[in-house]
Amino acid sequence: MANLARTVFLVSDSTGITTESFSHSLLSQFAHIEFNFVHMRYVDSMSKAREAAAQIAAAGKEQEARPLVFSTLVDAELRRVIAASGGAWYDLFETYLAPLQQELQMEPRHVSGRTHGVIDDRFYTARIDAVNFSLQNDDGVSTRHYSEADIILVGVSRTGKTPTCLYLALHYGVYAANFPITEDDCLALRLPAALQRHREKLFGLTIDAERLQRIRSQRRADSRYASLSQCRREIQLAEELFAATRIPYLDTTTMSVEEIATTILNRSGLRKEARPAPAGS
Amino acid sequence: MANLARTVFLVSDSTGITTESFSHSLLSQFAHIEFNFVHMRYVDSMSKAREAAAQIAAAGKEQEARPLVFSTLVDAELRRVIAASGGAWYDLFETYLAPLQQELQMEPRHVSGRTHGVIDDRFYTARIDAVNFSLQNDDGVSTRHYSEADIILVGVSRTGKTPTCLYLALHYGVYAANFPITEDDCLALRLPAALQRHREKLFGLTIDAERLQRIRSQRRADSRYASLSQCRREIQLAEELFAATRIPYLDTTTMSVEEIATTILNRSGLRKEARPAPAGS
Repeated sequence: MANLARTVFLVSDSTGITTESFSHSLLSQFAHIEFNFVHMRYVDSMSKAREAAAQIAAAGKEQEARPLVFSTLVDAELRRVIAASGGAWYDLFETYLAPLQQELQMEPRHVSGRTHGVIDDRFYTARIDAVNFSLQNDDGVSTRHYSEADIILVGVSRTGKTPTCLYLALHYGVYAANFPITEDDCLALRLPAALQRHREKLFGLTIDAERLQRIRSQRRADSRYASLSQCRREIQLAEELFAATRIPYLDTTTMSVEEIATTILNRSGLRKEARPAPAGS
Repeated sequence: MANLARTVFLVSDSTGITTESFSHSLLSQFAHIEFNFVHMRYVDSMSKAREAAAQIAAAGKEQEARPLVFSTLVDAELRRVIAASGGAWYDLFETYLAPLQQELQMEPRHVSGRTHGVIDDRFYTARIDAVNFSLQNDDGVSTRHYSEADIILVGVSRTGKTPTCLYLALHYGVYAANFPITEDDCLALRLPAALQRHREKLFGLTIDAERLQRIRSQRRADSRYASLSQCRREIQLAEELFAATRIPYLDTTTMSVEEIATTILNRSGLRKEARPAPAGS
């Protein structure tokens, strides 16, 4: 008989981002279990590791099933402390560092993300510049800088354009603008003049009308804007416009912002890619 | 003798986010090797897997050292195709799924992030709402909604407030506002009235004056705003203000946006945590 609740400790010597994505990817394979996550970040000293281990051990004594422990700890001493805490333990470095060392014929640095310190100034600046670019070129407020854009998202209101642009900027340093398509543009079956010059940069977002209605209703309940008939009409017209003007587009109905952003990276052939800042674990 | 350049294939059946953070965390331990990353996302069918494997095999024949392959593929059939490509292969599911299955006494679903489809509407909406909140409450443009804020970042211009707020919103659904501290506020050694009421939500950002000068110079070269003396003065005054008003603060000089955001989550005791959207790998 399976245990239907488990405490999961996420122990990282740094941001915890890798620990989170690594554990969530694996645990999403096990339905019907309620996982209660406890985040432990910047565990980068023996005293912090001992404190974390004590907390894990205490949870193990209180609970029926032993806790799961996912960790990304560069320092082998810290790993040993966590390993001895009695949880079911899975650590990226413990698993892969030795085989990689063998393959690459090189000693690892054993230095955690947090402490190697020096930031790649150029990359950091590029991402911040990209964020500023998307803020300045959000929602069609300005179209003057479209020649600098890597991509321009188009779609009716509330299809996910703004968060997707910000995600592309923050993670991939992509200069992403966005422009809201109106009913009039659609009826004319032609792109607004500001967009025509940048046809090759355009990427459309569309969404299921029922979902759009729910999203818009949270914003402006009982308005014409949020009515199902209006949502249906705008979506249908926008898709006709995309087809007529041969703009590639994506249905975002069941997609997260991460999925929309990475699918666009994939399909548009944009070459910019994540170079995560130092702290990877 | 070590090989000083390696091609690294990142193969995912979904967004590639886990594959990226997992491989970067490990490979950042090996200095002096130039890693050339090739991203392969949404490899979710046999035909795409075969295509990916062929590309990996071709790279292996061309290059002196065999390529590294990091993958997060839920489907065992797809994994077998990639495993046979001749690269040095590291896959999260291959490594951990069996031990987790044993520990949890449950069959994994073997369904990739991309295809389980249904989005947790509440969480999705919460993150988008948080992004909208930070856009509306950026740079002190409005202080009316501070009672809804989870956190309010304060600091002089260009200390990383805006990207940090957006990161907190996009990843953790945190309602983060930010307010620029001016020289006059600092000289008075008191907080602007709009902030005083929300003292417990304030978190300060500071930065090394030399780095601030470089950042500001990219924006407005040769201005008083970007002069080293002005940067030094503002930073010193801001830190005095933080100390006088007992606002916790963080030096962002050598930190990435991810590090700033997660350190704030850690120190402020904010309870909101990432619940990644379906696509984890």
